[in-house]
Amino acid sequence: MDHLKETVLSSEAVYEGKLVKLYVDQVRLPDGKTSMREVVRHPGAVAMVPLLDNGDVVMVRQFRLPAGRVLLEIPAGGLDPDEDPAAAAVRELQEEIGYRPGTLTAIGGEYTAPGYTTEFIHFYLATGLEPSNLDEDADEFLEVVRLPLDEALRQIDTGVIQDGKTIAALLLVARRLGR
Amino acid sequence: MDHLKETVLSSEAVYEGKLVKLYVDQVRLPDGKTSMREVVRHPGAVAMVPLLDNGDVVMVRQFRLPAGRVLLEIPAGGLDPDEDPAAAAVRELQEEIGYRPGTLTAIGGEYTAPGYTTEFIHFYLATGLEPSNLDEDADEFLEVVRLPLDEALRQIDTGVIQDGKTIAALLLVARRLGR
Repeated sequence: MDHLKETVLSSEAVYEGKLVKLYVDQVRLPDGKTSMREVVRHPGAVAMVPLLDNGDVVMVRQFRLPAGRVLLEIPAGGLDPDEDPAAAAVRELQEEIGYRPGTLTAIGGEYTAPGYTTEFIHFYLATGLEPSNLDEDADEFLEVVRLPLDEALRQIDTGVIQDGKTIAALLLVARRLGR
Repeated sequence: MDHLKETVLSSEAVYEGKLVKLYVDQVRLPDGKTSMREVVRHPGAVAMVPLLDNGDVVMVRQFRLPAGRVLLEIPAGGLDPDEDPAAAAVRELQEEIGYRPGTLTAIGGEYTAPGYTTEFIHFYLATGLEPSNLDEDADEFLEVVRLPLDEALRQIDTGVIQDGKTIAALLLVARRLGR
């Protein structure tokens, strides 16, 4: 694939924030010319499909300022520095929906927008869930929603669910379960 | 959903680039406290599943600097200012894979990372494809790849395909086709 590769010549931080850092990189293109790339450096994240024994999936409603609206999503969160993704998944399940998983199954992951952000989200199927204390993040306002997996899939098919990680991870689980 | 809503108090541009603009917004939270949100403003995009009459899907390999690697993706591209998404889909199919669609079917879309970017990608299924002249973007180095839809789905199930929009849009098409 070397004939497609770009080489970074220089990298300048134009913003270093709380969640995202933005860099402008100068690159050498495969044809030898130079160009610039705007890159959001993101610590990465985890997203979980929490599937209860009765077939319900536990999701969250959250106001997303960039979308300007409330979205229905699976629980997710950013990785702390050097944090193991599976540990982050357990932490976020506790913080966002108040459950502890018996089994976490890695089911792949995704680059959310590889044209301009480094963010990779690790996906997990969480089963054997036991209620535990909700340990909320002070800065987050969430509404926990339980709904049958088939209803969530219907809301994907009809375009009601519009969060990328939620569409991808739920459809990956649906394929595993033959739904 | 008003009990979840955040209200923007002020918005400051910290970077205005070629592809992305980064703003830092001060917001009022549902509990009356204030917080800040880092928001990438993105013009939005389109992504297409080009399905040939023989069941092959036409995809592209592209080096993605933020991922540090070559990814296998469906054709996609950003919206020009005020551009109609369906028109952008036709333009990008021409530019990236050199096909003109007979039929474009809207199959939903996704916010790629609604925690920090406004980007929404409109998804289309493109059928009745006719070869036309490739009209390449000077800044893009792509390799066009044809593969059976079932092989692309296998590469999603096994985690080989890691681009978010590609996973979501191909799995949406698979559900429509009962695959």
